[in-house]
Amino acid sequence: MKEYCGIFGIYNNPNAAYYTYLGLYALQHRGQESAGIAVTDGNRIDYHRDFGLVFSVFNSERLNSLTGHVAIGHNRYSTSGASDSPDNVQPIVVSYKLGQMAIAHNGNLVNAWELREKLEDEGSIFRGTTDSEVIVHLIVKSKKRRFLERLMDALSKLKGAYSLLVMTNKKLIAIRDPWGFRPLCMGELDGSPVFASETCAFDLIGAKYIRDVEPGEVVLIENGEMKSYRIPAFESAKRSQCIFEFVYFARPDSKIFGRSVYEVRKAFGRKLAKEHPVDADVVIPVPDSGVVPSLGYSQESGIPFELGLIRNHYVGRTFIKPQQKMRDIGVKVKLNPVPELLKGKRVVVIDDSIVRGTTSRKIVRMIREAGAKEVHMRISSPPTKWPCYFGIDTPTKDQLIASTHSVDEICRYIEADSLGYLSIEGMIEAAGGSWEDYCTACFDGNYPVDIPETVVRQAKKE
Amino acid sequence: MKEYCGIFGIYNNPNAAYYTYLGLYALQHRGQESAGIAVTDGNRIDYHRDFGLVFSVFNSERLNSLTGHVAIGHNRYSTSGASDSPDNVQPIVVSYKLGQMAIAHNGNLVNAWELREKLEDEGSIFRGTTDSEVIVHLIVKSKKRRFLERLMDALSKLKGAYSLLVMTNKKLIAIRDPWGFRPLCMGELDGSPVFASETCAFDLIGAKYIRDVEPGEVVLIENGEMKSYRIPAFESAKRSQCIFEFVYFARPDSKIFGRSVYEVRKAFGRKLAKEHPVDADVVIPVPDSGVVPSLGYSQESGIPFELGLIRNHYVGRTFIKPQQKMRDIGVKVKLNPVPELLKGKRVVVIDDSIVRGTTSRKIVRMIREAGAKEVHMRISSPPTKWPCYFGIDTPTKDQLIASTHSVDEICRYIEADSLGYLSIEGMIEAAGGSWEDYCTACFDGNYPVDIPETVVRQAKKE
Amino acid sequence: MKEYCGIFGIYNNPNAAYYTYLGLYALQHRGQESAGIAVTDGNRIDYHRDFGLVFSVFNSERLNSLTGHVAIGHNRYSTSGASDSPDNVQPIVVSYKLGQMAIAHNGNLVNAWELREKLEDEGSIFRGTTDSEVIVHLIVKSKKRRFLERLMDALSKLKGAYSLLVMTNKKLIAIRDPWGFRPLCMGELDGSPVFASETCAFDLIGAKYIRDVEPGEVVLIENGEMKSYRIPAFESAKRSQCIFEFVYFARPDSKIFGRSVYEVRKAFGRKLAKEHPVDADVVIPVPDSGVVPSLGYSQESGIPFELGLIRNHYVGRTFIKPQQKMRDIGVKVKLNPVPELLKGKRVVVIDDSIVRGTTSRKIVRMIREAGAKEVHMRISSPPTKWPCYFGIDTPTKDQLIASTHSVDEICRYIEADSLGYLSIEGMIEAAGGSWEDYCTACFDGNYPVDIPETVVRQAKKE
Amino acid sequence: MKEYCGIFGIYNNPNAAYYTYLGLYALQHRGQESAGIAVTDGNRIDYHRDFGLVFSVFNSERLNSLTGHVAIGHNRYSTSGASDSPDNVQPIVVSYKLGQMAIAHNGNLVNAWELREKLEDEGSIFRGTTDSEVIVHLIVKSKKRRFLERLMDALSKLKGAYSLLVMTNKKLIAIRDPWGFRPLCMGELDGSPVFASETCAFDLIGAKYIRDVEPGEVVLIENGEMKSYRIPAFESAKRSQCIFEFVYFARPDSKIFGRSVYEVRKAFGRKLAKEHPVDADVVIPVPDSGVVPSLGYSQESGIPFELGLIRNHYVGRTFIKPQQKMRDIGVKVKLNPVPELLKGKRVVVIDDSIVRGTTSRKIVRMIREAGAKEVHMRISSPPTKWPCYFGIDTPTKDQLIASTHSVDEICRYIEADSLGYLSIEGMIEAAGGSWEDYCTACFDGNYPVDIPETVVRQAKKE
Ligand SMILES: Nc1ncnc2c1ncn2[C@@H]1O[C@H](COP(=O)(O)OP(=O)(O)O)[C@@H](O)[C@H]1O
Ligand SMILES: Nc1ncnc2c1ncn2[C@@H]1O[C@H](COP(=O)(O)OP(=O)(O)O)[C@@H](O)[C@H]1O
Ligand SMILES: Nc1ncnc2c1ncn2[C@@H]1O[C@H](COP(=O)(O)OP(=O)(O)O)[C@@H](O)[C@H]1O
Ligand SMILES: Nc1ncnc2c1ncn2[C@@H]1O[C@H](COP(=O)(O)OP(=O)(O)O)[C@@H](O)[C@H]1O
Ligand code: SF4
Ligand code: SF4
Ligand code: SF4
Ligand code: SF4
Ligand SMILES: [Mg+2]
Ligand SMILES: [Mg+2]
Ligand SMILES: [Mg+2]
Ligand SMILES: [Mg+2]
Repeated sequence: MKEYCGIFGIYNNPNAAYYTYLGLYALQHRGQESAGIAVTDGNRIDYHRDFGLVFSVFNSERLNSLTGHVAIGHNRYSTSGASDSPDNVQPIVVSYKLGQMAIAHNGNLVNAWELREKLEDEGSIFRGTTDSEVIVHLIVKSKKRRFLERLMDALSKLKGAYSLLVMTNKKLIAIRDPWGFRPLCMGELDGSPVFASETCAFDLIGAKYIRDVEPGEVVLIENGEMKSYRIPAFESAKRSQCIFEFVYFARPDSKIFGRSVYEVRKAFGRKLAKEHPVDADVVIPVPDSGVVPSLGYSQESGIPFELGLIRNHYVGRTFIKPQQKMRDIGVKVKLNPVPELLKGKRVVVIDDSIVRGTTSRKIVRMIREAGAKEVHMRISSPPTKWPCYFGIDTPTKDQLIASTHSVDEICRYIEADSLGYLSIEGMIEAAGGSWEDYCTACFDGNYPVDIPETVVRQAKKE
Repeated sequence: MKEYCGIFGIYNNPNAAYYTYLGLYALQHRGQESAGIAVTDGNRIDYHRDFGLVFSVFNSERLNSLTGHVAIGHNRYSTSGASDSPDNVQPIVVSYKLGQMAIAHNGNLVNAWELREKLEDEGSIFRGTTDSEVIVHLIVKSKKRRFLERLMDALSKLKGAYSLLVMTNKKLIAIRDPWGFRPLCMGELDGSPVFASETCAFDLIGAKYIRDVEPGEVVLIENGEMKSYRIPAFESAKRSQCIFEFVYFARPDSKIFGRSVYEVRKAFGRKLAKEHPVDADVVIPVPDSGVVPSLGYSQESGIPFELGLIRNHYVGRTFIKPQQKMRDIGVKVKLNPVPELLKGKRVVVIDDSIVRGTTSRKIVRMIREAGAKEVHMRISSPPTKWPCYFGIDTPTKDQLIASTHSVDEICRYIEADSLGYLSIEGMIEAAGGSWEDYCTACFDGNYPVDIPETVVRQAKKE
Repeated sequence: MKEYCGIFGIYNNPNAAYYTYLGLYALQHRGQESAGIAVTDGNRIDYHRDFGLVFSVFNSERLNSLTGHVAIGHNRYSTSGASDSPDNVQPIVVSYKLGQMAIAHNGNLVNAWELREKLEDEGSIFRGTTDSEVIVHLIVKSKKRRFLERLMDALSKLKGAYSLLVMTNKKLIAIRDPWGFRPLCMGELDGSPVFASETCAFDLIGAKYIRDVEPGEVVLIENGEMKSYRIPAFESAKRSQCIFEFVYFARPDSKIFGRSVYEVRKAFGRKLAKEHPVDADVVIPVPDSGVVPSLGYSQESGIPFELGLIRNHYVGRTFIKPQQKMRDIGVKVKLNPVPELLKGKRVVVIDDSIVRGTTSRKIVRMIREAGAKEVHMRISSPPTKWPCYFGIDTPTKDQLIASTHSVDEICRYIEADSLGYLSIEGMIEAAGGSWEDYCTACFDGNYPVDIPETVVRQAKKE
Repeated sequence: MKEYCGIFGIYNNPNAAYYTYLGLYALQHRGQESAGIAVTDGNRIDYHRDFGLVFSVFNSERLNSLTGHVAIGHNRYSTSGASDSPDNVQPIVVSYKLGQMAIAHNGNLVNAWELREKLEDEGSIFRGTTDSEVIVHLIVKSKKRRFLERLMDALSKLKGAYSLLVMTNKKLIAIRDPWGFRPLCMGELDGSPVFASETCAFDLIGAKYIRDVEPGEVVLIENGEMKSYRIPAFESAKRSQCIFEFVYFARPDSKIFGRSVYEVRKAFGRKLAKEHPVDADVVIPVPDSGVVPSLGYSQESGIPFELGLIRNHYVGRTFIKPQQKMRDIGVKVKLNPVPELLKGKRVVVIDDSIVRGTTSRKIVRMIREAGAKEVHMRISSPPTKWPCYFGIDTPTKDQLIASTHSVDEICRYIEADSLGYLSIEGMIEAAGGSWEDYCTACFDGNYPVDIPETVVRQAKKE
């Protein structure tokens, strides 16, 4: 049910589908399970979508067949390896009373099941299991007459995270939930408005970043005109941009929430160095997410930075595991130490977060086996103690080691000589903001939206 | 929009999915574009479906993962080579107020668009373009409380051809439209009720044929009990079983509409020999559809039967066409004459029908080039003058040569020495029935259901 | 090691590769495991080959890239389901002292291992396991200077069956072994010489059949001129054309060994009716190999012919077998009876041969279960008692039921009411020839070439 | 004809094939076009190989079928995108006089064509176009009796680069050419000898690095015993280990030629900083090859290191190019700048080498467009002026910009504010060796082996 995704949209461009392809390619890190593009020529929405990476889902024949001037695209991440239904692949394209509509959704609604039940009670039919179908049904079911009213009506019922692109044969609409959980950027390419989860998509196509779609904003483009509206019901919603996007998810060359991911991530590392200094000989990252904070830590502490762990570029899903009688190759499939850098050294190793602790433990051991004298683990975010219900895949509370163990205990478990987490205050400060700006629920349990009991239970069962 | 299909269902069998696989395999001739199986264990409907032949859509891993005691399956035929939406692949599986439901549909509704518009007006959302989605929505939208009532309510609105299998987590329901256009047979395997479009599916799994689902009948199985109901609205609907199933579509080793396809098809040939005798040396079929009527013609006329045209077993969609400058290889990709059988002979060649006339013309020429002295074409059905709106793919009226040309003109066009069609009366008599039993609309224009103007226009545009 | 194959070659035609593609397509029944085409433009041999049917190995891009005026092609049959080495896929293309050479081979050498050992002793290196590599090495190793002399030198060492097409950058050579085991036909297309295993390949491309390449003949085309030579060593070799090609292997619309397969096969049926008449109501074939002899039996005996067993067109390798606890579906995957034709009838059922007897037994049972009163099996060839070492896949002696059981015992084993085989004399007579013309070794053990002990032992082990 | 490759071998281990799979996986960066494993159980060599990455060529079924205690594997890099012949995929497995032999080869022979011609003159037949086939033929053609003698005989004829693994049913042999161009390391896993192109393969399987196979050494393992021999003919060959392996090709976490690639690469960067200092604000690498030298440059110069260019992880061959009318997206498909790091800065950007100069020019422009005030390009190797004939793919002389332009001219061409290359002396010193140790021919034209005129000409034509 969790939905990490990358979304992209473009209005009024003769190469709409191709630019969407490029945009999705730049956003591939946000979702590798499926990809899709829907395009309209003003009369008919056409689409292609399938499981796989962007470049395997599309070939030039397929892409060229998607003619039209407006397009939206979607990359999807699967939280489990389990095979998923083709009915869940986005963009969803439907036909209803007012014509055709396509939708691409990044986020996770906390009241999706509740809404779904109500909708089913009123006669709605669902084919897949994604939240996105709920949104479509709400729009269609609305008693309002005009499309925009229907849309507003629908949005006013949604609780949780959603960055949305909606396309009809005449309109392109970009929407961000009132809390602003997920990023959504607006840009411009040769006069065409473009939208993307992260600005790295704009860079690839040569578009200019204009501004973010604001939390609670509905940007509607029609007849070449752009208008901005606000989702009515939640005027007082606390701005709650997902700080974890900075920590881990977004690409460092992107700008999200108006800030450079790279700069924020490096500031995390600097702050971490101040909060948890240590006498050491070398700072090494767990690549790739640890690289940028490591640079910050190194610069702040003056301890030299080295690439002490090299990541295999060819890690893939289809790796054949060793049989049980053979020794476990564990994390080595992905990472290999450079012993010359580590032998006899006091090593600071930096990762973005610790979830279950098992990987960190393997990494610490690997560094020690490569000859390190001391291994000091530093984490560029606070202890992850609470599950996320807003679209980032985290396990349930009892599986989060920080939820059940003290920092000391974790340190012992992962067999490090010391362990230091960034503080929440430090993180927020480094992110250049205030408590007013960010969601930090996975660190402090302050969920900006009430989480229904059923959702909590549901998450546990999965 | 046209839907040729094969459907299969089984209730209460530990190998439900595997038997459905076998059933679809036996019914492969009814649809080669996509295949799917949905199965329930009483709590949850699981399914797998994809484009391709049954044996390429399923492998043993996939099949084994479909555990449950009740299953339905579907083979689909695409009338165009055009790539189709995955949203149209069946069985359709949906979730709604009362739970999950899967549906497999063979046939074509004449009021689908009308119903669809009404449904969309009332807030229904469509993902694909098949009629089958309309049925699902009607069931869900019904104001009735119990499932059976809802179903009856929905069925009472449908006009046109439908043989349906509907599965919920507790029920399996087999339905045939009030006219009985498409076949649907009921059988039994070790106490398990089974349903299939044709009995050849029963033969493969070793099931016993019990009887047909009657036109207008709803057979509902629940808690191990089978009950029969009638679709209320159409008590007086004229029984209109598609006689063309006998002529061409069904497998000769099947029983449909209570009769052996082989016997009926041979009777067509015998009758044809009586209606259009000719002095000749040899009777040859256009394989495979012409084989059985040729045997009838040969036995009645005493003219020896030979396999004068050999069909290549490996004909496939991916054949690379010759370039324009090369000579046309036409029908030879599929058929090759045996000149020794034809040289200097007066040949009767028998096919099931003539659509545009171009293939028949090529066949006549090929036989003549192989040395035949005379070529007499005989057709085991009457001239095809009207399009079918009940699920058999025929071109529009103006493309049907018999609609715009007399038999004499057709004979000249295909360059035959003589041409004889089976009469409508002869066909019905040979099918062992009366006007009361069969649809013959493609031959005489007497559509048993009124065809809305929009449908006629629509068909023309396609 | 067994090599059933189809081969095709064309000289001096601008569409050489495409015609070869068509030729292989028409010869697909002679080999479904792999396909390949080699083409030369006079300077360089290019090729493409892979596992799979002709139409899946080639797409238009691949085919268009094979430019040149001379081409040879090869279809290969695998005797086992076992996965085979790509090094065995033909045509084999090599580079050696005199330049490049491509070779396509149909047949089986009885002294291949012996020659191979000698060649290895002299320093030859083998990559695959096919006989065809032996031929290439012999040509290359020959001490003779000119290509033709080398070739003759090589051929004079070969014992066994080979129809060969050899292509260099300048020459196309067609060769048939001195015994003439396998067919090889010569034709002409718009002035271009063409060669094919069977004439059905000529029919598809519109080429004219000229004559057979004679046993022991070497037809060499160079500079547009065709010359004929004889393989020197075996002047007195007994002509031994494989009569089993008529019985089973060749397509009925082909001409091989100068005769129509259809006519010969029907004559087998007629003769069978004379040798083994029976009072019966209906004659049915085991399709497809039994169809033509059944027509002969029916015409001779006056007992009506019917298609009492219908063959599923979609039989494929990937069929998922039922699990052991389920009932065996045996031969039903392939064949289904038409009970209406069999009920209460005395049935004559005709097949081309009986190998182990297990299939025949299942067929007899199936016919009886469909209601037949009596089942009389008739076989359109003599009892298969000896293995073939000349390229037709037969099991070892001890697995051939006719080798260890009398006709009466076989009749009882297959549970037939009577069983009749065609006599050797009858078969030869029906094939329109004399003992001088045909190999009949699998029926009488008179191998026209001595079979080395090692080959016999080898065959047993496999 | 160029052959970059990764090779791996293991002796006497029950999981030989699986460890070889892992080894190839760790060596994937040395060749992505094809992969193969050959294994022997002492009696028979079995193998599987195909085009594709290691994890797509092998699945667990395939891997499990490769049973045996000795195995060798090969990854191959294709220098052109052109489709290549399956006859070239390694390991090559052949059968000859003394039995079976498998061979995996990394390197490029300069006298391959010469040897091939001679071999063809003597009757050898070649199926593919790789040098490796030449080696096999030389072994087989040798007049010597014992295998080792034959091998030595063959090796004494080879000129150029080869690291070889040869496997027979009883032996595993690891060989490095007398100059030692390509790396080949020896290790040990639970008592089993293992060999690999780079030590990163040992790390993944948990093997211990023992030492390098020495230039000119033949390590033969048989009956569990390891013996070392020297290739006789070239006692005086100058040790010429490819220094470019350090610059670019090897993985930084590997040890080759007895040294840590990471340390050498970093020393290149330090030396470069000394030789070409510059007043600047930030040092950024062109990832990935520029990362480690950048760290050296940064540490030496004190200018902070940043990841100013982010590399897209999903770059693949199948990327659909924009159509001509659209603006060129050039190097952006692969790299994206982080403008916040570059704006208003004086930037040092470090890459490993400049070949044609076009990519460097695009990178400089991209950095400038991202706001850099100055762009100083530094290259961690000397100007590449000469083609490599020893297995590294470089274009011909006239395409190498440094061959035809001065450093100043190149600087202007790539639009940099300054350009500095590492000196040859600096490079050798940083590599911790002397002129006695390394090949530097691509930088100074001093080829350690005479390059035949034909090879030079051939390279030009390709
Ligand atoms: N080319 C890159 N260079 C540096 N960081 C990257 C790059 N691409 C992605 N990233 C960052 O790395 C994150 C992925 O972290 P990584 O540690 O590689 O994943 P995981 O720990 O899940 O295997 C991305 O979401 C992004 O923030
Ligand atoms: N094995 C078979 N033997 C004889 N007839 C068959 C067989 N399988 C299918 N048929 C009949 O042939 C029909 C297909 O006719 P055919 O002439 O082969 O198709 P088309 O003319 O469309 O190419 C089937 O629908 C069925 O009635
Ligand atoms: N289209 C055809 N019609 C009739 N006979 C055919 C046709 N194609 C092939 N044959 C004949 O049938 C033979 C194959 O016999 P069949 O009984 O189908 O195979 P098997 O018994 O091995 O399954 C072919 O080699 C050929 O002689
Ligand atoms: N995970 C890694 N981290 C750092 N460097 C790597 C890594 N993997 C490979 N390398 C180095 O990068 C080289 C490839 O350089 P790169 O610049 O990525 O290629 P190219 O310039 O050809 O696109 C490898 O041969 C190796 O030396
Ligand atoms: S709970 Fe954590 S991961 Fe989820 S939105 Fe809030 S900050 Fe982001
Ligand atoms: S119109 Fe013809 S094809 Fe259609 S249902 Fe009636 S009889 Fe059948
Ligand atoms: S032994 Fe039989 S199958 Fe073999 S060549 Fe002779 S006749 Fe043909
Ligand atoms: S020429 Fe250059 S790339 Fe080639 S081996 Fe020598 S140093 Fe290495
Ligand atoms: Mg990480
Ligand atoms: Mg037909
Ligand atoms: Mg047969
Ligand atoms: Mg690089």
